[in-house]
Amino acid sequence: MADAGQLAVLVNTFGSSLISVGREVGLEMALNKAQVSQGVKVQGVCASALIGIVGGGLQGTAVIMLDSAGFNSVVSTMSGGMITPDIREGVAMSVVGELSNMMSGRALIQTALNGVDVTPPQLICGENIENVPSQTPGIKCFTLPFAIQSGGTLYLVLSFNAS
Amino acid sequence: MADAGQLAVLVNTFGSSLISVGREVGLEMALNKAQVSQGVKVQGVCASALIGIVGGGLQGTAVIMLDSAGFNSVVSTMSGGMITPDIREGVAMSVVGELSNMMSGRALIQTALNGVDVTPPQLICGENIENVPSQTPGIKCFTLPFAIQSGGTLYLVLSFNAS
Repeated sequence: MADAGQLAVLVNTFGSSLISVGREVGLEMALNKAQVSQGVKVQGVCASALIGIVGGGLQGTAVIMLDSAGFNSVVSTMSGGMITPDIREGVAMSVVGELSNMMSGRALIQTALNGVDVTPPQLICGENIENVPSQTPGIKCFTLPFAIQSGGTLYLVLSFNAS
Repeated sequence: MADAGQLAVLVNTFGSSLISVGREVGLEMALNKAQVSQGVKVQGVCASALIGIVGGGLQGTAVIMLDSAGFNSVVSTMSGGMITPDIREGVAMSVVGELSNMMSGRALIQTALNGVDVTPPQLICGENIENVPSQTPGIKCFTLPFAIQSGGTLYLVLSFNAS
């Protein structure tokens, strides 16, 4: 269980980790602060990478969701144009998985959470993918939308069990 | 890391747990053994519940994926017809989450894995959702398709890190 303070730290840390690892791989992103919201608020998502976070009393998930333009930006930039952005291709989707891995790794180091482990990313593609907030009591969910400079939107959807 | 024997046990246990918890809530399902495959092989999926499994050296995910008819069957049967099957509704999707929770709970008890924890289910809806196998080395992935007696198909996609 995370209390309100820990939740705020987690959300901020994941957001800033995403921006900093993004910058390191040439992906400039800006958080659209006015659009940060509780719950899930995404649009036109075609690709998603999901990481489970468990341990030390914490249970949650970090999900990166991309619209079509965002997917193209991430794959092209991170692969230096070497990989064709195709959501049905494992190689292209793995690029998104790698970004989510880098983000969680960075965030977990920065929050210095003990005994927390993460699952390998699950890659999901489709049309108009939405993350439906669970009705389970005690689950808090946040959506952070990032505008990618080279085009498109990346949504970071975080859910944690909160006390 | 799970070795080949442990992997087989995990896959069998998740499959049989799904069948037995399904039966308890009135959902008769039969594994289509001829169609069990390595990797991800799903079709026409519109609803998905994903659980992360971490701890005791194990990292993995268990994903329940449903086509439209399967989603209708699961929601109608498990709610006794009380909930309208709508993939964009949290209440209806939570029924799928509950089924995945019950399955993982049962499977983890049966395999008697120590120190293994699971994330709350992540619910994802959309059109033609596919689970793209990660290119990460050491990840083994399996798809178990189940025919639901009252109509539709449920795919159980399991991925684990394997040695």
